[in-house]
Amino acid sequence: MRNIVLVTSEVIDDANLARLSAVASVCSSRKLDERSLLKILPNVDALVVFFWPGFLTSENLARMKRLRFIQSVLVGVNHFPYHDLRAGIVIASNAGAYSLEVGEHAWALLLAAAKKVVADSKRLADGAISFAEFSGEARDIVVLKGKTLGIIGYGGIGATVAGYARAFGMNVLAYGRNKRRIRGVEYLRGSKGLASLLKQSDAILLSVPLNRSTQHLIGKRQLAIMKKHTILVNVARGDLVDQEALYGHLTANPRFTYATDVFWAKSGRESLETDYKFQALPNFIGTPHMSGPTGIVSGTPATSAVDNVLRFFTGKRPKNLVDRSDYLEAV
Amino acid sequence: MRNIVLVTSEVIDDANLARLSAVASVCSSRKLDERSLLKILPNVDALVVFFWPGFLTSENLARMKRLRFIQSVLVGVNHFPYHDLRAGIVIASNAGAYSLEVGEHAWALLLAAAKKVVADSKRLADGAISFAEFSGEARDIVVLKGKTLGIIGYGGIGATVAGYARAFGMNVLAYGRNKRRIRGVEYLRGSKGLASLLKQSDAILLSVPLNRSTQHLIGKRQLAIMKKHTILVNVARGDLVDQEALYGHLTANPRFTYATDVFWAKSGRESLETDYKFQALPNFIGTPHMSGPTGIVSGTPATSAVDNVLRFFTGKRPKNLVDRSDYLEAV
Repeated sequence: MRNIVLVTSEVIDDANLARLSAVASVCSSRKLDERSLLKILPNVDALVVFFWPGFLTSENLARMKRLRFIQSVLVGVNHFPYHDLRAGIVIASNAGAYSLEVGEHAWALLLAAAKKVVADSKRLADGAISFAEFSGEARDIVVLKGKTLGIIGYGGIGATVAGYARAFGMNVLAYGRNKRRIRGVEYLRGSKGLASLLKQSDAILLSVPLNRSTQHLIGKRQLAIMKKHTILVNVARGDLVDQEALYGHLTANPRFTYATDVFWAKSGRESLETDYKFQALPNFIGTPHMSGPTGIVSGTPATSAVDNVLRFFTGKRPKNLVDRSDYLEAV
Repeated sequence: MRNIVLVTSEVIDDANLARLSAVASVCSSRKLDERSLLKILPNVDALVVFFWPGFLTSENLARMKRLRFIQSVLVGVNHFPYHDLRAGIVIASNAGAYSLEVGEHAWALLLAAAKKVVADSKRLADGAISFAEFSGEARDIVVLKGKTLGIIGYGGIGATVAGYARAFGMNVLAYGRNKRRIRGVEYLRGSKGLASLLKQSDAILLSVPLNRSTQHLIGKRQLAIMKKHTILVNVARGDLVDQEALYGHLTANPRFTYATDVFWAKSGRESLETDYKFQALPNFIGTPHMSGPTGIVSGTPATSAVDNVLRFFTGKRPKNLVDRSDYLEAV
């Protein structure tokens, strides 16, 4: 019997569906009515998912006795229903697939904050007609050269951004689990290492997965030890940062900037509606999660997700295996 | 008799005034009343100027019989009254002194345009609560890697930005008079070379001095041969671009973006008031000439200007000598 792959996202394009067909029968959930879909579930060997599909409830998952592999098209797999996924199911993230697009977006946010591009272009659009005073506004502009960038989570995005930082003449500190080493990047480990990074950095990039141990990684205590003028850039997940603590910190520290492409989850899904009025703060810059879709447009995430499914079915070790203990509550 | 240097800008700080004092008597126009100032003019050997000072009229310049050297603290010397400056007076620009700060600002503008940071953060601030459609907004985001950057005017700023572009994986074309060569940068010459750069580039940086031959360097004809999605970044002088032609091009080509830190001159001086309503266009990004003041804050321009005056008085050849034929109308 041929392997069956159920694809639940339109992000996988026809060319990649054809590649999958070489190793398995491919079903697209969008092309099946509910009855056919339910009928096929017990025979599905592998799933390719983007956002977790609503029809894959606890009950329906229990019927998927043959399910052995789940490939995520997204990097973040924090929203998977781990409690309902048997221990034998191999789960793979799509880490690295968006590194270029997200890395470029991160640098855009950092520079927009450093050079006050959003605030100053707004000032101009609002009809301001006076040039900067050397002693005034210009002193708040941050020159990146010689400053220190701290990267929290040193995977594909972190490495991409580290390359930009070195071209800009910045010192780079990295905190993360990976052992990957790049010349010119100083690695820090453990809670002391993290504290040291937070204290030393003029700019901090969050590019770490959201999981049990990174939820609210940046809270009141972490914000308090950062420099007063730090630029905190988030291209990973909103909930890495404690929303209430951040709002308090931004209002109390006008020279501190938070520049983000990602927002906090409401009912398990990212929402652009925040609990606090961040948009009214001049030291908040937000873009509506543009970096991921930019990556999707490139086609890379679809191709790399399918590459990984082919790896699984041809007996090779898939990349980006998820350690579910990162996400499951300890029993 | 000791040489006399008249400093007409407060940008030259005390430490640099002290350095000047080692080779000359230093007078600061801000500390002299008008009578003393007029009295001293015939004895002044060298001038250090920022904006051209109002009191240095044609009449007063005619009285400065000993004047041999003028050092600009600004890079741009297009506003000097060349008709009133005797041929024997050596004039030096301050090219290179702001390269780092202006280069970083140029990259901030380019990325803000490429990633639509200003437009999208405005969309969010205005209360938009929908994420990007992969097939919609995300397709308008420009990924820099693999694209081509054309640099018009390859001096210090151009070289700085070329370094960033290469770290971002861009191809770099350069058009300019300098012979400076950097690995990975392709040089183009002459009007055919310029046309080729305009046609090939996905992003174009203007970092060339404004003079007789570069005034309106970018007009209707040049805009017409650029790609429809080109991002044009200006960190040099507004009048390199024909204002009317640009406005027409921006309204007719919504995917084309103009991102600028510099504005057109009115009555000989840069003004934030434009002849057309650029601020109402979503494909216009403007910051109020922040890059220069950022450079001033660093202290580099003051130091490098004074370095050059010292060079002149100790018999060395000053750097950045101005060829006045670039600015004077042909007789």
